[in-house]
Amino acid sequence: MDFTAINLAEKFAKITEPWSPRIIAQMNDYHFKLAKIQGEFVWHKHAETDEVFIVLDGEMRIALADGGVDLKKGELFVVPKGVEHKPVAAGECSIMMIEPAGTVNTGDAGGDMTIDAVEWI
Amino acid sequence: MDFTAINLAEKFAKITEPWSPRIIAQMNDYHFKLAKIQGEFVWHKHAETDEVFIVLDGEMRIALADGGVDLKKGELFVVPKGVEHKPVAAGECSIMMIEPAGTVNTGDAGGDMTIDAVEWI
Repeated sequence: MDFTAINLAEKFAKITEPWSPRIIAQMNDYHFKLAKIQGEFVWHKHAETDEVFIVLDGEMRIALADGGVDLKKGELFVVPKGVEHKPVAAGECSIMMIEPAGTVNTGDAGGDMTIDAVEWI
Repeated sequence: MDFTAINLAEKFAKITEPWSPRIIAQMNDYHFKLAKIQGEFVWHKHAETDEVFIVLDGEMRIALADGGVDLKKGELFVVPKGVEHKPVAAGECSIMMIEPAGTVNTGDAGGDMTIDAVEWI
């Protein structure tokens, strides 16, 4: 087993593309993923699971059907399962997502922003 | 539903006692807990689940049978299920833990530091 601390800043330094989540840790059947985001993602939902967003640097908005939630560094939000949402960031924003392994980034929406095989870093 | 960001610093400000985790969020059947720690916890293990530690401020060590892992702000570690561990912090350290709802803080060890009903803040 790898008994080494996972340094979030070191992991983020390996990510260059926006909207390209990378796995950094696994807890039971859940993955911890890091991503840099900028611009608009697609509206989608995850029918089977909640999804956690934690902002580690910058600011983002999670647009929801009836408004949305603004998140800044040090803030967390749980998107409930089945709830349509669209992540948006005006500037570059670094986030951690926690969700079951195999959760597809675009949920039910599919499309060009879908990443089928999320890599570990 | 409560569509509000959870601000970690605001939640930490409500915690005064060391080794007293508080729940701040739920994702499916998992809880996100915050705690301030200082001093030595007890050796214990969780037979049924992995457990994630993220250091949000300060430094800690997770002692393990064959050494241990030092964690500072911005670092994460997954204690595998069944692995004996003892959290330790020389100074005050603020951490987030992620684990299944109902996971007992002292695992199999029990004792005075056990918190049976973890409160939400």
